[in-house]
Amino acid sequence: MNSNRGLEMHSFIAHWIDSLMLKDLDLKQHILKALVNKNFINKERLYIDTQMCKGLLFILDGKARIFSLSKQGREIDLFYLDAGECCILSANCVYNSVEMDIILEFMQDTKTAILPSSILHILKDNIIFQNFLTHLLTKRLSQTITTLNITNFKSLSYKFSQFALKNMQNNSLYITHQELSNHLGSTRESLTRLLKKLEKQGIVKNLRKEIKIQDIDALKNLN
Amino acid sequence: MNSNRGLEMHSFIAHWIDSLMLKDLDLKQHILKALVNKNFINKERLYIDTQMCKGLLFILDGKARIFSLSKQGREIDLFYLDAGECCILSANCVYNSVEMDIILEFMQDTKTAILPSSILHILKDNIIFQNFLTHLLTKRLSQTITTLNITNFKSLSYKFSQFALKNMQNNSLYITHQELSNHLGSTRESLTRLLKKLEKQGIVKNLRKEIKIQDIDALKNLN
Repeated sequence: MNSNRGLEMHSFIAHWIDSLMLKDLDLKQHILKALVNKNFINKERLYIDTQMCKGLLFILDGKARIFSLSKQGREIDLFYLDAGECCILSANCVYNSVEMDIILEFMQDTKTAILPSSILHILKDNIIFQNFLTHLLTKRLSQTITTLNITNFKSLSYKFSQFALKNMQNNSLYITHQELSNHLGSTRESLTRLLKKLEKQGIVKNLRKEIKIQDIDALKNLN
Repeated sequence: MNSNRGLEMHSFIAHWIDSLMLKDLDLKQHILKALVNKNFINKERLYIDTQMCKGLLFILDGKARIFSLSKQGREIDLFYLDAGECCILSANCVYNSVEMDIILEFMQDTKTAILPSSILHILKDNIIFQNFLTHLLTKRLSQTITTLNITNFKSLSYKFSQFALKNMQNNSLYITHQELSNHLGSTRESLTRLLKKLEKQGIVKNLRKEIKIQDIDALKNLN
């Protein structure tokens, strides 16, 4: 483990542990020792299936998405995890009865710290940790309902504008049409048709593996 | 309050309170006294918005659905509540930060008991109640992800078959095409087209405000 990364991880997680108001100093040390520092590369995936219980993942630096995959290969992004956010890697870590076949994919090279499930079981009796979990689950439920509403009630142009505003770097999305259509739960053909239309309107410019945003105000007004 | 209903409510909720393993007898009595016994009629709605905090609703007898409503009036059922299930009537009861504009609609005349939010605040420090909440939220998250996958990845005929298998009474759905299309997040026109096709195939028979299932095995195999 690189010592710089060790320090960085320590301060971020130490803050989280403090927020649990743990009075048991041994437990604090136990948690810090149990943390696994792990780097993932862009596009690497973790399969969050019902069989495995991987623990609680903290994003230290980078970005990930949680998505559903259909048998036909269609995808829908449920929500995104930015630096400072965390994710229960399987609800099975806490309860055995729940089925959720979803996938976590890193959207860039990402540094994480993982708190293994053995520690989560110890924290199950900690009221502040349980409040933290309730809060986290309520947030994810809210985000998933929002996604459900957007995918069902909103147009592809609106979905594109929301994705672009959230994910562009220097006013560009560095992504192929196939990848982007996966994020939006669309087909590549529909997306390409939309992007050609938006190019004609001067809102985007389609380059190779890059979509340049030309008119950000018009992008914000797409619905 | 009718004394029969009082008894019925008592035994159902008393079991729930026992499961919390509350050692504080005063608190037990406090919870039982705070419960509000309330009957709703078919189609009655509770708006679960971000402003209100209504408590925890137990379905004693009857059925309800939780659904999203778009500005254009389109609906999607997120999940159903049968007798013996319960629902946090607003995440705001526990946390203030979460936005979820969803509606609860009773699908038949329904008897409920509501535990007001004031009691939920007292139970916030009860570890077993918090575990119960975590479990409930995980279940709702899982159900919402399943709904998201079905609405996005599955055909209307599959959605119809799943709804019919879950909601038919004596092999019939007593519902108009408009109501049914609301449940399925579809338009009335698409649904009527589907039901005509299924009638030609001998799977259903379309009557006034009734869809009779003629071939249940074929219904189960729709995809």
